[in-house]
Amino acid sequence: MNIGIRLKQRTFLKAFVFFAAFSFAASAHAAAGDQDLINKASQIFGPLPQTMPTEQNPITPAKVKLGKVLFYELRISIDGTVSCAKCHPISLHAADGLKKAKGNNCKENPRNSPTIFNAASQITEHWIGNRTSVEDQAKQAVTGPPAFGMPSYESVEKILKGMKGYLTLFQDAFPGEKDPVTIDNFAKAIGAFERTMVTPAPFDDFMKGNAGAMTEQQKKGLKTFLDTGCMTCHFSPYVGGQMYQKFGVIEPYLKYTKSEKADEGRFAVTKNETDRFLFKVPVLRNVAVTPPYFHDGSVDKLDQAVWIMAKIQLGKDLSKQQTEDVAAFLSSLTGRISNEDLAVPILPAGE
Amino acid sequence: MNIGIRLKQRTFLKAFVFFAAFSFAASAHAAAGDQDLINKASQIFGPLPQTMPTEQNPITPAKVKLGKVLFYELRISIDGTVSCAKCHPISLHAADGLKKAKGNNCKENPRNSPTIFNAASQITEHWIGNRTSVEDQAKQAVTGPPAFGMPSYESVEKILKGMKGYLTLFQDAFPGEKDPVTIDNFAKAIGAFERTMVTPAPFDDFMKGNAGAMTEQQKKGLKTFLDTGCMTCHFSPYVGGQMYQKFGVIEPYLKYTKSEKADEGRFAVTKNETDRFLFKVPVLRNVAVTPPYFHDGSVDKLDQAVWIMAKIQLGKDLSKQQTEDVAAFLSSLTGRISNEDLAVPILPAGE
Repeated sequence: MNIGIRLKQRTFLKAFVFFAAFSFAASAHAAAGDQDLINKASQIFGPLPQTMPTEQNPITPAKVKLGKVLFYELRISIDGTVSCAKCHPISLHAADGLKKAKGNNCKENPRNSPTIFNAASQITEHWIGNRTSVEDQAKQAVTGPPAFGMPSYESVEKILKGMKGYLTLFQDAFPGEKDPVTIDNFAKAIGAFERTMVTPAPFDDFMKGNAGAMTEQQKKGLKTFLDTGCMTCHFSPYVGGQMYQKFGVIEPYLKYTKSEKADEGRFAVTKNETDRFLFKVPVLRNVAVTPPYFHDGSVDKLDQAVWIMAKIQLGKDLSKQQTEDVAAFLSSLTGRISNEDLAVPILPAGE
Repeated sequence: MNIGIRLKQRTFLKAFVFFAAFSFAASAHAAAGDQDLINKASQIFGPLPQTMPTEQNPITPAKVKLGKVLFYELRISIDGTVSCAKCHPISLHAADGLKKAKGNNCKENPRNSPTIFNAASQITEHWIGNRTSVEDQAKQAVTGPPAFGMPSYESVEKILKGMKGYLTLFQDAFPGEKDPVTIDNFAKAIGAFERTMVTPAPFDDFMKGNAGAMTEQQKKGLKTFLDTGCMTCHFSPYVGGQMYQKFGVIEPYLKYTKSEKADEGRFAVTKNETDRFLFKVPVLRNVAVTPPYFHDGSVDKLDQAVWIMAKIQLGKDLSKQQTEDVAAFLSSLTGRISNEDLAVPILPAGE
C-alpha cells in the first residue's frame, strides 16, 4: 500500500509539473499579447524606486525614525490639534478626504491636500509649486497660518527641546551636531521619512512583466490613457508631478466643476502672466482612493474627474466606457502600504 | 581539540548554571523584602486582565477588526475631521493632550478627554458618568454636538452603507443579521475593539512578583500612595474608574487649580444635590504620559496634580519628596502598547 501511495504521489507530482508548465506557457502566451503594452508603459512611466532619495538630505534609518515621530507630533501646533498626519492620515492613504485641508483652529487651507505617498520626487511640492521640496514643505507648514500656525521656528524648537525624549532622537539622527534640535533638522527628518513612503501597486507588477496583475479593463484603460494623451503630462514612475500645466487648456474648468471661483494658480507665486492658471500636474498614484479631486476638491467621483480632464485638457470627449476604463486603470495605481508605514510611533512624553 | 572545546563548553555551562542559580537566589532575596508590598498591592489592585469583556457585547475578532476601522473613520463626522482617534491618538497613549477635547468645527468639549486604554471596565464612561459603557459612549459621540456632530444615527448609517467595503466588515462581525450596518452594531464593534485595549505596565510585572520591575523610588511612591489613602478611591486593576467621589472633599479645587469655574459634576446628570461636584474617579493607568490633568485639564504637571489631590481629597500636605515618589510610582503605570494597537487600519474606499 505504501508503494501504491508513493506511485500516486508521483503521478500527482507529474500531473502538477505538467499543469504548472502548461500554466506558465499559457501565462507567457498571455504576456506576449500584453508585451507591447508593458513595453510602452515601462518606457513612459519607468520602474518605481524603493525610496525617493536626494543628495541634499540623505535617507538614514535614524532620520526616518525621528521623522516618523515628528510626523505625528501635535504639540507643536498653535492649538495642539495639527500634525502632519492630520492632513495626511495613513488610514485614508495619506490624504484627508476633504475638499480643502483644515489646519489649526479649523482654518481652511487654500487647496486640497494630496497624499504624501510617492510625493517626494516631484519637481516641487504644493499645487502651485510654492514649496521646493518635502523638506521645505514640512518646514513652512509649522508657521503656515492655516497649517500649524506657530508664531516662529524658535517656538517650535523650544517645545521640542522641552521634551527630553526628542534630544536623543535628534542626536541619533544628526550625530556630531552640538545643538541638533533645530527646525532645519526637523524638516530634514520629516523629509527623510517621506522619502521612504513609496507604495508599489498592481501597475508596477504589470510593468515588471506580470500581465495578470491588471484586469482586462485596467489594461484597456491604460491603452485609452496612452491613446488619449493623458501621459503627455502624467508620466514618470509617479504618473505625474514632473511639470506644470494650465488647468483648462481647451476649455475653462469652471464650466464643468463645482469650483466656486477660478484659482490663478502658479501666477500667485511668479506673477508671470504665462503662469496664470498653471498648476503642478499631480501624482496619480493612489488617486482612486484619495477623493475629492482637483486643486479645490471640486469633483467627488473619479470617472467624472477623468472625463473632465480629457475634455478640457485634450479636447477629447471620452465615452462612458472609455471613462470607466481609464478609472479602472487608475485603480491599478492603488498601492500596497507597508506595515512600517501603518505602524504609529509612540511620541516622547511631555515633561 | 574538539574535546578541549567540549570541556570548555561544559565548564562554561556549569559557571552559567551557578551564576543563574545565584542570580535567582539574589533576586528571590530582594523580592522577599518587597513581598509585603507586592501582597498589599495585589490585594488592593489585583491582576490586570488581558481584555475587558462584557456579557452584553462579547469580544470577537471580526468585531474588533471592524471596530478598529471605525475608530479611525473620519467621514462620518459633520466636517470630515473627527474620528475616535482624533481625541484618542494612539501615539499620545490614546489621549489628546488638550485641556478639553476639540470636536467638529473646533467645538470645545465640556471636559478633558481621557485615554481609552484600560477604560472599558469602569462603572461608567465620561467624567460625570453620563455614558453607561464604551458602547454607549461610541454611539452617543456620533451625534454629540461638540463631537462628531452628525444630525442623526441614520445619517451615519447612510454614509457607512455608501461604502461597499463596510458591508463585508459588518457582515463578518455580525453574521446572520439581515441589515448589519446599524448604529448599534457600530457601537458594539468599537466597544469590542476598546475592550481589547489593555496596556500591561511595570507595575503589573511587580505585582506578579518581579520586585525589580519597579525602581526603589517607585516602590516608595507606591507605599506613600497606600499610606496616604489614595487607594481609597483609586483601586482595582485600573487604579480607578470604580466609583464617584467629590472633587474637593476637604477644600475646593478652585483654590489650587487654574480652573476657570466650578463644574457641578454629576449633579448635571442626576440633579441630586448630593451629586454636586462628584466626578467618576479616573483610571490612573498611563496617567504620567497623558497630561494635562483633572476633568478640565487645569493642571499640567503630574507632581502638582498629585500634591493637590492629597491636599484637597485627604487633607494631607505631601512633602516635595513624597509627591515626587508618588509621581514616580504613577509612571510605573505607563503601559506597553501592543503592535496591534499601534497598527493603523486602511479604511474602505469611498465610492
